[in-house]
Order: sequence, then C-alpha cells, then structure tokens
Amino acid sequence: MSGSRSRRSAKAGLPPGSLVHVGKHAAGKATITVATYDAGEFRIKESSSVEECFSLVDPSRVTWINVDGISDAKTVEAIGTHFNLHPLLMEDVMNTDQRPKMEDYDNLLFLVVRVLSPGNGTGGIESEQISFVLGDRCLISFQERKTDLFKGVIDRLQMVRSRVRKSGADYLLYSLIDVVVDNYFVILERMGDNVEEIETKLISGGRVETLNALQKMKKDLIYLRRSVWPLREVLSGLERGESRLISGTLHVFFRDIYDHTIHAIDTIETLRDMLSGMLDIYLSSVSNRLNQVMKVLTIISTIFIPLTFIAGVYGMNFKNMPEIGWPYGYPAVVVLMVFVSLAMLYYFKKKKWF
Amino acid sequence: MSGSRSRRSAKAGLPPGSLVHVGKHAAGKATITVATYDAGEFRIKESSSVEECFSLVDPSRVTWINVDGISDAKTVEAIGTHFNLHPLLMEDVMNTDQRPKMEDYDNLLFLVVRVLSPGNGTGGIESEQISFVLGDRCLISFQERKTDLFKGVIDRLQMVRSRVRKSGADYLLYSLIDVVVDNYFVILERMGDNVEEIETKLISGGRVETLNALQKMKKDLIYLRRSVWPLREVLSGLERGESRLISGTLHVFFRDIYDHTIHAIDTIETLRDMLSGMLDIYLSSVSNRLNQVMKVLTIISTIFIPLTFIAGVYGMNFKNMPEIGWPYGYPAVVVLMVFVSLAMLYYFKKKKWF
Amino acid sequence: MSGSRSRRSAKAGLPPGSLVHVGKHAAGKATITVATYDAGEFRIKESSSVEECFSLVDPSRVTWINVDGISDAKTVEAIGTHFNLHPLLMEDVMNTDQRPKMEDYDNLLFLVVRVLSPGNGTGGIESEQISFVLGDRCLISFQERKTDLFKGVIDRLQMVRSRVRKSGADYLLYSLIDVVVDNYFVILERMGDNVEEIETKLISGGRVETLNALQKMKKDLIYLRRSVWPLREVLSGLERGESRLISGTLHVFFRDIYDHTIHAIDTIETLRDMLSGMLDIYLSSVSNRLNQVMKVLTIISTIFIPLTFIAGVYGMNFKNMPEIGWPYGYPAVVVLMVFVSLAMLYYFKKKKWF
Amino acid sequence: MSGSRSRRSAKAGLPPGSLVHVGKHAAGKATITVATYDAGEFRIKESSSVEECFSLVDPSRVTWINVDGISDAKTVEAIGTHFNLHPLLMEDVMNTDQRPKMEDYDNLLFLVVRVLSPGNGTGGIESEQISFVLGDRCLISFQERKTDLFKGVIDRLQMVRSRVRKSGADYLLYSLIDVVVDNYFVILERMGDNVEEIETKLISGGRVETLNALQKMKKDLIYLRRSVWPLREVLSGLERGESRLISGTLHVFFRDIYDHTIHAIDTIETLRDMLSGMLDIYLSSVSNRLNQVMKVLTIISTIFIPLTFIAGVYGMNFKNMPEIGWPYGYPAVVVLMVFVSLAMLYYFKKKKWF
Amino acid sequence: MSGSRSRRSAKAGLPPGSLVHVGKHAAGKATITVATYDAGEFRIKESSSVEECFSLVDPSRVTWINVDGISDAKTVEAIGTHFNLHPLLMEDVMNTDQRPKMEDYDNLLFLVVRVLSPGNGTGGIESEQISFVLGDRCLISFQERKTDLFKGVIDRLQMVRSRVRKSGADYLLYSLIDVVVDNYFVILERMGDNVEEIETKLISGGRVETLNALQKMKKDLIYLRRSVWPLREVLSGLERGESRLISGTLHVFFRDIYDHTIHAIDTIETLRDMLSGMLDIYLSSVSNRLNQVMKVLTIISTIFIPLTFIAGVYGMNFKNMPEIGWPYGYPAVVVLMVFVSLAMLYYFKKKKWF
Repeated sequence: MSGSRSRRSAKAGLPPGSLVHVGKHAAGKATITVATYDAGEFRIKESSSVEECFSLVDPSRVTWINVDGISDAKTVEAIGTHFNLHPLLMEDVMNTDQRPKMEDYDNLLFLVVRVLSPGNGTGGIESEQISFVLGDRCLISFQERKTDLFKGVIDRLQMVRSRVRKSGADYLLYSLIDVVVDNYFVILERMGDNVEEIETKLISGGRVETLNALQKMKKDLIYLRRSVWPLREVLSGLERGESRLISGTLHVFFRDIYDHTIHAIDTIETLRDMLSGMLDIYLSSVSNRLNQVMKVLTIISTIFIPLTFIAGVYGMNFKNMPEIGWPYGYPAVVVLMVFVSLAMLYYFKKKKWF
Repeated sequence: MSGSRSRRSAKAGLPPGSLVHVGKHAAGKATITVATYDAGEFRIKESSSVEECFSLVDPSRVTWINVDGISDAKTVEAIGTHFNLHPLLMEDVMNTDQRPKMEDYDNLLFLVVRVLSPGNGTGGIESEQISFVLGDRCLISFQERKTDLFKGVIDRLQMVRSRVRKSGADYLLYSLIDVVVDNYFVILERMGDNVEEIETKLISGGRVETLNALQKMKKDLIYLRRSVWPLREVLSGLERGESRLISGTLHVFFRDIYDHTIHAIDTIETLRDMLSGMLDIYLSSVSNRLNQVMKVLTIISTIFIPLTFIAGVYGMNFKNMPEIGWPYGYPAVVVLMVFVSLAMLYYFKKKKWF
Repeated sequence: MSGSRSRRSAKAGLPPGSLVHVGKHAAGKATITVATYDAGEFRIKESSSVEECFSLVDPSRVTWINVDGISDAKTVEAIGTHFNLHPLLMEDVMNTDQRPKMEDYDNLLFLVVRVLSPGNGTGGIESEQISFVLGDRCLISFQERKTDLFKGVIDRLQMVRSRVRKSGADYLLYSLIDVVVDNYFVILERMGDNVEEIETKLISGGRVETLNALQKMKKDLIYLRRSVWPLREVLSGLERGESRLISGTLHVFFRDIYDHTIHAIDTIETLRDMLSGMLDIYLSSVSNRLNQVMKVLTIISTIFIPLTFIAGVYGMNFKNMPEIGWPYGYPAVVVLMVFVSLAMLYYFKKKKWF
Repeated sequence: MSGSRSRRSAKAGLPPGSLVHVGKHAAGKATITVATYDAGEFRIKESSSVEECFSLVDPSRVTWINVDGISDAKTVEAIGTHFNLHPLLMEDVMNTDQRPKMEDYDNLLFLVVRVLSPGNGTGGIESEQISFVLGDRCLISFQERKTDLFKGVIDRLQMVRSRVRKSGADYLLYSLIDVVVDNYFVILERMGDNVEEIETKLISGGRVETLNALQKMKKDLIYLRRSVWPLREVLSGLERGESRLISGTLHVFFRDIYDHTIHAIDTIETLRDMLSGMLDIYLSSVSNRLNQVMKVLTIISTIFIPLTFIAGVYGMNFKNMPEIGWPYGYPAVVVLMVFVSLAMLYYFKKKKWF
Repeated sequence: MSGSRSRRSAKAGLPPGSLVHVGKHAAGKATITVATYDAGEFRIKESSSVEECFSLVDPSRVTWINVDGISDAKTVEAIGTHFNLHPLLMEDVMNTDQRPKMEDYDNLLFLVVRVLSPGNGTGGIESEQISFVLGDRCLISFQERKTDLFKGVIDRLQMVRSRVRKSGADYLLYSLIDVVVDNYFVILERMGDNVEEIETKLISGGRVETLNALQKMKKDLIYLRRSVWPLREVLSGLERGESRLISGTLHVFFRDIYDHTIHAIDTIETLRDMLSGMLDIYLSSVSNRLNQVMKVLTIISTIFIPLTFIAGVYGMNFKNMPEIGWPYGYPAVVVLMVFVSLAMLYYFKKKKWF
C-alpha cells in the first residue's frame, strides 16, 4: 500500500505542478539515453548531462529519449522545461503510483503504463511506472530505474531492415508498449504455476502456510488487476485512433495489444475465481480433517466409558453381591466387556462413523 | 491454465508478427484440404504440399481451404504470404489461447472461435481454437489438429441441391460456426447430467470426492464461460451486418446462432448458480452428519458418567456405610442405575436430542 | 436442465432449419383452432386437418390460428410452408427450450414467451414455450400442449362489444401476452406463500427437509428468472414501437405489461434475497441448537467428573486412611459431593452457561 | 410479500383495464377533498359524493382533488370517467402494489410513489401507494387511506403569501412529493437508530433475538429499497423536463428531491452494508462465546481425569501393592494429585488456554 | 449514521427552501473572511459582521468570501439574500450531510465536496461539508467550522508571482478542491498503515479486539467511499467543461484532480478487498487455534480413559481373580498401563494429530 520512501501525502498543501518524487526507487542521478534514427542511420548515446542530450536531438530524424531514474527531479525538470511540457504532466511523471492513463495535450500524447516484475526474494509482485511523451518525431520515456526491458527494441532498431527502423515515433511507442504487455504474460504464467502448486499442496492436505500463500497471491492479484485493468481503456482509445499523432496504419497494431491486454485481464479474473474456489476447499478440508480426529478420539472415549462403568459396578463393596463370589464371575465380566466393546465397534462401523 | 508445450511467455521480447506457435497440440506437418464448388460441381482434395493446394484454387468458384495442424509454422506462413495476410493476423492464428474475436481487415474478415471437446480420460473440458479468414469468394479455416467436426458440412456440400452449395463463402462460414455452437450443447448437456449426478450423490450423503468433483466442474465452467462469452459480441457484430463480406440475407442466420450462444451462456450461468447452491448443501450436510455422530457419542458418555459415579460411591471403603451391609443394597443400586439412565434417555428423547 | 425426451444436442450436425422437436411434451397429433372475427361476427373451429384449417382463413377479417402440440413436426411444417415462414423461425417454434425473444422478419413479427405452471405433484415449476407469429391481419400461436390458458380471451372474443373484438391482430397478441404475464403472479404468489411457510417452519426449528425445500425453491427461482427476465427486453421493444405491425395506440398497453414484467422480476429478486437471508438463519439456528445440546451434555459430564474423582479417592485401599474409619466419614463425603455439585451449578448458572 | 386481502392473482384472466382493488387497506367509502385556489382565494371542501365534488372544480383556478380510500372502486371509476382517464391508468391507481413510476399520457402526467410508515406494533415498515394525475390546472391524488401526511401543504396553501399558493398545479405536485421524500428520512433515521441499538446489544453479547431483529431489519431494507429505488428514475425524468406539464422553473426543485432520493438510497445501501457486517460479528461472537464455554468445561474434565486415574490405581485390589501399606502412602498420593492438577493448570495458563 | 445534534428528519413537513441547520457542529456565530485580489494587490479581512463584509467586495477584482460556521442561519441567509442565491441552494449549504454534487444555476456554479479528517480520540473518520458558489469574479465557500485547511492557498495568494494570484475565481476554486482531494491521501495512507498494523497483529494471533478494529475500519471505508465516490462525477463534469464559468485552460487541471479522485477510489476498493481477505484469515485462525486446544485436551482425556478402565478392572472385588494374588501383578499392570499410553501417544503422533 505504502512505500517506505516518499509518499503521496507529502504533497498535500503544495501548489499543483510541484515536482516532488513519490515512489520507492529513489536512485541518485538520472541516466539519459538518446537514440536518433532514420531508415539510413542509427545512433545511440548514453549520458547524464542534460545539455549534452539536448544537443543530440535531430529534428530531421526520429528521436527517442529514455530517462532512467525519475527521482532526480532536477534532470526531469530540465527536460520538461526544454520540451515545454505542462507542469501537471511533469508532476504525473514523478508520481510513480499512478494508474495507467492517456492524456492528450494538444501537440503531445502523454501515456502512463505500469510494468510488472517479480518482487525480489519474497515472491510478491512489484510494479514500476513508465511514462511516455509522444511528440511529432520524438518520443520521451521515463523509467523509475535502469532495466534491460527495452533491450530487444534497441536491438531491432540497430537492424537496418527492421520495421521499427523504417517507421516513425508512433511505431516505436507501439513497440515499447508491446514489450510491456508481453511481459505481463511472464508474470501471469508464473502465477498460474504458483496456483497449480498451491492446489497440489491443498489436495495432499492444507496447512496454515498454504492459507497464507493463498492470501498473499490474492493480494498480488488485486494489485495486478489495478495495474492492468485501466490499460484497457488507454489502448482502446489508441486503437480507435483518438490521437492524430498515431498514424492510421498503426490502429491494427494497437488493436493487437488491446487484445493481449483483454487476454491478460481474463487470466487474472480466472486466477481470482480459482483462488476463491481453493479457499473454500482449504477451509472445508481443514475442518474436515480436524473433525475426523475429534470423531476418532470421541469414539475411543465412548467405548471405554461403559466398560469403566461395568468395572465400577463390580468394584462396589456391597456385602451381598452374589456375582462376586461366583467362581467364573471375573471371566464372565471380562467376556461381557469384550462383547460390549465389540458390539459398539460393530455398531459404529455399520453406521460408517469411522 | 498453462499447457506443457509452448507458452505465450516464450514470445516476450520478439518483434510483433513473429510466427511462434503457442499451444498444446504440436503436431508435425499440417494437412491442407481444398474444396472448390459452385451450384454445378464440387471438388475436394487433401494434400500436405502448399504449392499443390494453391494450384487448386479457382477464383471463379467458391474455395474453402482447411488447414489442420497449425503448429506447422512453415505451411501457415506460406499460406499467409500467398494470400497476403497481415503479419498480426498470422500471429493470432498460431496463438491458440486466444479468446473468440472478430477483426475487420479491409478486404478480409478474421474470426477466432473456440470449439469444446470433452477432455480425454479425466473428464475435464478441452478447447481448441479455430480461425477463419473470409475473403470474397474464399474461406480459409485453421484448426489445431485433424477432427471430423466439419464432416456434416462437407456431406451437405456434396449434395447438389443443398443451400450451402448454392450460396457463397459467407454461408459456408455461417454453416461452420453453426456446427461449433451446436457442439457447445453436447458439452453443456453432458455437464448438466454430471451436475444432476453429483446432486443425487449429495442427497445420499456427500463425501470428499463429491466436493472435488464439484470444484472441478466449477473450474470447467469458468473455462467454458471464457470460451463462449466473447463469442456473443462477435456474433452480435456479424448479425448487425458490420462487414460488407456478409450478405444481408445472412443476418437472420447469424442472429440465430447469436441466440444459441445466448442460450449457451444462460445455461452456463444456471449451472454455476446450481453448483454454488450445491456447495452450500454439501458443506451443511457434511457438518450436519458429523455433528449428529458427535451428539450420539456425547449422549452415550453422558448417560454412563453418572452411573459410574454411583458405582464409585459404593466402591468407597468407609467403615461406616450402612447401605453396604443391607441385603438388598446391591439390587437397589442396580435399580437406581437403571432408573437414572432411563430418566436421562427419556429427557433427551423429549428434548428431541436424538 | 435436461428433459428426458428430445434434447437439443440431437440437432448437432444437422443443417440449419431442420425441424426437430426439442422438449418434454411429445404429444401425438397437433390440434389446430382457427378463429376469424370482425366487429360483426366471430367464428371458431377446431380441427386436426391442416387443409381444413387453411380453408377457414378469411383475409378480410382477423384470423387467429392456435396450434396445440408442436411436437407434431408434419403439421407445423405444413403451416410454415403455407404461410411462407422462414425455416429458422420454424426451427425456433419447435425448440421448446428457448428464452423469450422477439424477431422482426420483414412483414412478420416473431415472438417467443414462456408460460409458467406449477409442476404436477412434487411442487416445482414447469415452463412451456408459446410462440407467436404476427402478420398483418393474422396471428398464429404455437403451444406445446392443449391448455385452457387462453379461455378468457376466447370468451371476450365472443362478446360483441369487447375491445378485442373490435381491434386488430395486434390487440389480440397483446391480450394473449397479458394473460401469460398475469399468470406469472399466480405462480409468484404461490412461491411467496411457500417462502412464508418455510420461514415459519424455520422459526419453530429448522430441519434438513426445510433446507432441501429452501434449495429447491432457490432452483425454481433461478429457472423462473431465466424465463421472465428476457421478456423485459421483448416488451420494451414492443412498447417503444419498434415494429410497424403494432399500431401506435397499443404502445400504452404494451407499456402496461412491461410494467407488470418489471414487477414480476422485482418480486423474484426479493424472493431470492429473502431465501438467502433464510439460509443464513437456518444454518445459524441449526448450529445453535446443536451447540446448545452439546453444552448441556458437557455440563452434565463436567459436574459428575469431580464427584467421581472424590468417590475414587475414598475407594483407594490405603491401610492408613483416617477418614475411612471416622463414623461420619461417609455422610461427610456425601455432603462434600452435594456441595461441590451445587457450587458448580451455581457457577455455571451465574456465568449464564445454561 | 402478500397481503391478506385482495391479491394481484385475483386479476388473472380479467380483461385489461378491469378495476379490481389489489391491496391491504379495504376501507369502505372513499373520502374526496377538493381544494381550489389562486393567488387571491383558497377554498377547501370534503365530501363523499362524487357529483358534489365535480361541481366544485373551477377551471379558472388550480384544483386539487384528493381521494382517500381507493378500494372504493365505484368512486374511483366515476372520477376516471369524469376526467376521461385511460382505463390502464385507473387500473394502476387501484393496484396498490406498484413500484414508483411515471407515465406520460398525452395531456396528462401519471405518477405513482410510495409513502413509508412504521408498521403498527411489531416494528416493521409499511408502504402505501399514492398516485398522482397532473393535468393542466388540476391535480388528482389517490391515497389508500386517510392520513395527515399532506396537512403541512394544506396549511401552506391557506397562507396568502406562500409560494405554493401563487404557483400552478405542478408546484403543488412538487410540494406533495417533497413531503413524501422528506418522510423517508424519518423512517431511515429510525432504522439507523435501530441499527445502532442492535450493534450495542451485539457488543454486549448477541442472542438469538438479536439475530431475528437483524434479519427482520434486513427484510425491511429490501422492502424499502424496492419502494425508493425506482423513484430515482421517475424524478430524474421530471428533472430533465421530459413533460411539458412541468414548467421550466421547477426543474431545479425536482432536481432537489432527486438529490434527496439519491441520499436516501445511499443511506439504505450503507445500512445494508452495516447490517451484513453485523451479521458477521454476531455469528463470530456467538460461536466464540460458546467455544469459550466448551473450552473451560473441557479443561475441568481434563484436569480431573488423570486424578481419577491415580485414585483408580490405588483402588486396585492387588495383594502385593507396597504403597498401600506405607504409613504416608495416602498423604503422598494426595500431594501427588495436588501437584499434578497444579502442573496442568500452570501449563494451560502458560499456553493461554483460559 | 445520525448525529446527536440536528437531524434531517427535523425538516419533514417544512416548506422547501427552509433554512434549518442539519449537522453536528453547531457553533455560535459565523466568521467571514473576505479576500480580494488581482495581479497587483491582495487584501484579506476577517469579520463577523455581514454588512462589513459586503462593503469589502470589489467587482473589478476577484473576491473570495469564506464563511466558517454555517450553523449560524442568520449570517448564511444574509449572504444568500445579498447575492440573490436560490433558496434550495441555501438549504443545501446548511444541510451538512449531502453527498458531493455539482449544480448549475444559470449564472452560478454550486459545488458540494466533503473534506475528511481523523476523528478525535477514537480513531474513526469524520467528514465535513464544504460548499462552493462560483460566480463570475467571485467565489463563496461555506465551511462547517474554522479549520486551517486552506492556509496553503492563502499563503500562495499572498505571493505576487503565484499562478493563483494571476488567475480568476475558477482557478481559485480548482486550488481549493485540489487541497481537499490531496487531503484524502493523508487519510488513506493512515488507513493503509492501520490495515498493515492489523495484518501484523493477525499473523501473531487474532483476538476479539482485532475483529472489532477490522469491523470499525470496514465501516470507515463504507463512509469514506460514500464521501469520495460521487466526487468523481462532479469532477468529470468540470473536466468536460460543462460550465461556462470554468475557462478552457483549466480543463487539464480538473482532469488532474479527477485522476487523483479515481486513484483515491481505487485505493479505497483495494483496502476493502484486503480487509475482507483479512476477515477470512481472522476467522480461520481463531477457529484453528481453538480447535488446536480442544484437540490437545481431548487427546489427554483419551489417553487416560483406557488407563482408568484398567485400574477399574483390578479394583473389582471378585473373589476369584488370579492376577490379584500374583506377586508381580501390580508391577505388570503398571507396565501394561505405561505401554498402552505410549502406544496411543505413538499412534497419535504418527497420525500427526498433535
């Protein structure tokens, strides 16, 4: 729910558009990667100086500026100022707990998506925010920290004949979002495996840890759903061609990732349904097993209590108890006891009580 | 959730339009069946050579190309290239975990539906993907593996006076989807029978296996729902005549299968409602039966404990216990014990405790 | 879920428009009733010969053809052929497990509604399908079997000054649907009474049969809902005047039955809510009563166990037990026992444990 | 669900527009109150003769006719005939189990609302139907029985300078509906108090009566919801100015009662949410308390059973039991028993078992 | 649900537009703060005299009138009369239990929002109503009591170069609502911390107090949701530019707070989901722990009952019991007892019963 670093509430009272980082990954200095390309040539340069980066932008070619480490407010602000971005847009870039959204700023398209990654160690899910600002021949992407998520796209950019190399900034945006959505399936399949593993454990007898794993997975799915669900609307808007910055031939591509998103949401819902079915099974099996134990214990007591009573009777000290004096009194009573216990066992067995 | 063969996550990082098979049935070579017909003549040829198939296509007549075994990427790609199909369309054909959908590619209509079949052996449900590409006088269908699902349609095509023989490729498409939807009812009636069978078992006393059967059926219904539900939108689109490739006289036919789909969804929802009602009954009956047992056991104990106490009293070794010496002390105590136990039984009976 | 006679799955593989009866009531020959009327005259004739019926149709007057027993495929087909009805329409007439719907065939209006009747004997709900085909001056109604549902309408038709006599076939259709919807309230009030009866039983102590009755009623309501809910859309369409076969002055009448249907749906939802509240009460009261019993039993045991212990102490055979020799040892112990048991009873009472 | 008097099912089979009273309050003769007013003068007359009432209507001034006791079919019919009201409208007036609705009859507006009142004695909720027919300068209101609900409006009508006196029949309609909606809050606050009272009882320990009160309140809320929810749509229609009989300046007034209705619905939903939370607490607290009792009882038994065993050992009659002969054997055993019981108590205490 | 002071039901029967305060905070006299500013100058004056305030209004500059303490009906009415506000608007200002809403009065925009604050002491949530009336160059805000919520905005107004100083009354409105929405996150993060705290407590073993805290938090969330949810629609209306009083350049700003509101609603839903998951865990862990205790107790009893039986056997007084006379009879029985108890312990251990 709440990260340990910078929280949203820290912004209460500040004027709108204040650039305050909200999020977990407070890295130091941002790294800026500038790539410019056209069909003929591809150049890429990594730097941490903003001015050097700006000098690399070439208006006659497609430019991709990727910023890793948005907690570095100074760098982000310099970029915002240089490209004349709206203060609220810049504020959204630095608030890393946003839900996916698309906003149309006259000559710019602003997109927020969330990329998922398995949490380190404990097995949960983590999500990071990636913001895109799409201009005419320019795409700026902001990431929370340096990852190799977009490595495949850079590789394709380096190939002379690849489609992305021959297309504009809108196709580059599509390629990057495609990577993000494809990545969801890696997470979802991992979760599907986990669900099956938990199910196997449940069948062989549930324990408290299984319940905790189940609840944790449920929480992860709530979180996942929140990250993926709103992306649906965003992509539906892009597919319908709401923005003039996306060329018409790309609508079929955005429809494709829209379909993938629907597929991911479907899978999330199915996993949720399966988990709640498993919770029912777990609770039922736990109470079943315990009740079974209690039943057996109670049956043991129930068999011995009448026997103890019989023994008690012949332990009475009445002077006038004829049976006491009989030579076969004792064996007779033992036989009686054996008979009573066998009769009870037979009765319980017949009633299928154990 | 996840097949053991090729998974979707294997595609993460690849450029869009990469033809990688995702699914369970990785057969070897694809089989292609080409049928051409008009009112006068019907010819059908099965082959595994792509070139031979292309040579059979007759633009003056209706052509139906059926591909069985889409894991054969080479054949699928050859067909895609020959008919100039969009790379994303070809990618969707090979991803066999798609939800039903319809996509309009200018001069083509692309449809994905799912056909259901009872899983072999264990009794679950399996679903396979069938993709249709409808052109002007041409229909291409892609199936995961060879089945005799469309045998009835081929039979009707061979009859000179059948409606399908005299109509275009759109009517053929309708006939094939009609077969798929009719097939749902075979599965659904089988599941309805299962539900009734489980219900009968529940009334005669639920066991853990019944619960497992119930949960498995619930999972099957989730899966079924996912396969059938999106078909509703697809058929609603066809019925409303969104595509110019479907002639107006066919709208009433597509409305008919739309109705059948609604009917199928209705049945699924009813089965779901019934299953959850049965889970309630199951849990209630299990706990009821167990409690009944515990009650009887406790009653037995409760009757014997006071008796044992009485025996204990007269087992005390006090020198001065007048009753001990009475000649009828022992029978009197036995009578007392019988009276106490009968009184308790009567009281429990009157209170309807057993 | 599934009738014992003819099932829908029997149709899988047949060409669309095949006239195969799907349903429970497979009567023999159909009975056809033809009524023709105008403001001046009313004539009615019952026959089982199709040709005789056709000869009675009078195009200058309003004609109502009522067919009882649609399992007689030959008769139904003859009527379809004579009036040139669409094959899919005829197929829908014979499939008696349809949900209510309205379809517009150019010059015809096709309506399917479901009429409810209390199941014979066991107390469940049964529903039958009635199909209407409304033409210009002609109405054909298809019923599964002969009932006296429409007797009241025929009576009104025989009265010279009745509104239905002076109006067209559309008002006749309205009158018949009105009868069907009014009939729902008979069923719903019967169910409301049942619910109240079950509730009374629950308050006086629930039993397993009550639970079964509750679950059966729940199932009936699911079934009912499925039959009534889609009628809402059908009537909403008629009220909004979507068909040119319904004259404008009738819209207010269809709005009226639309309101009645909403009312019926409302009642169904309320009954459902009440039933699920009752299930909670049932489960709670059953577990409460059982726990009460267990508590009393346990209290009895708990009181006697310490007493038995005291008796056990003085049953020990130690040579040196001074109390044994005391003249008032025995009465003292009895007094002690009485005191202990009274103290425990007082404590339990004070703690409100019984 | 069903009143004891006249039920809706009694109407099945009757022609549409039949005036049959459906409802609980079957009073004898209706009372008619006719009020006519303009800015200058206000006259009011109560009568039970229909003709006398009609003579009082003054077309140049605003006329309000209030009918108390709609079970008097003759009076209601006379009014319907005199004002030429549609038969279906009159039927709706007499069916007192309608949901709130608005219907537009060309030159008339027909409204049905439900007024709530605390049920007498048992504490439930009762609702009565009030129908309004709004004409150009005329408003007719039909109530089930005589109440003093509208007394405040009559008082304001008698004040020369009040807004209602200076406005038309539409403002009068608004004033009356405003009274009805304001009245909901009296009921809702009473229910809110009840909910808080039940909650207080629950915290101090729930009993079966509390559960019954809870369930009854739940039922009341279902009923309430049904009465208030559809009013939302009705008022939304009036606010949007769908009828030409409502002057434009009144839209803001109807928006105001629309807001109040939303507020009431909100409160109902909140109460429902709170009740279901309370049911959870109740069930949990009941089972908790009972389990607590069982635990203490079981602990008592568990402590005495080993002690009884020790006593049993030294009650054995073996000739050769050295301890029996020891002079301090008995005290030693007593010390052992005390030690064992203290050890067990200490262990249970440490484990926090009581 | 209901405050202790003035309730809504007190208004039933009063004419619409009656100024009766409904709410908890019945402060005495209202405090009025009037601020006027343009790019050049900023003046602020606090007063409790209405006339003095009106004299400060300067039509050539932006005026902000803030009223603290709306229970002072006289002051509120004077303001309403002076600015010619609609009586229903004034009524809404004084009814402090409104849901957020926006109303368009020709030349005015009326907004109601709710500001949340942690309840004093007990930890619940309290909400107060703030009403805004936006005119052309004038904004009036009504608060229930004096708070320092808007202090930050006043500070920014005092800075010459701040955006709010250079903009109109619409930007001021935006700034104030922005403060209100930012404030939600303070509350939500506090609740998120509470949820985590409760979760930690649950894992270390739930108690009844934890359940109560959980239920209280659930109630708070219901309340929160009711306060925030309708704000969504209000802001969506402002963002879409429904009112001409909001200049076009501000739409992007209102879209921003709209996004924040969606984010807040999302967080509320997530917290609700988490709470209900925690309730499941709580109930399961409580019953688990108790059952564990009962099982151990039952096992102790079950081990001693057969031993007591053996002791009972040799306590019988039969003359002819050979074992009694055996010299090693007693030790043999003791060994038997030890063996029996060990065998049972081993069996229970092997079955994993404890």
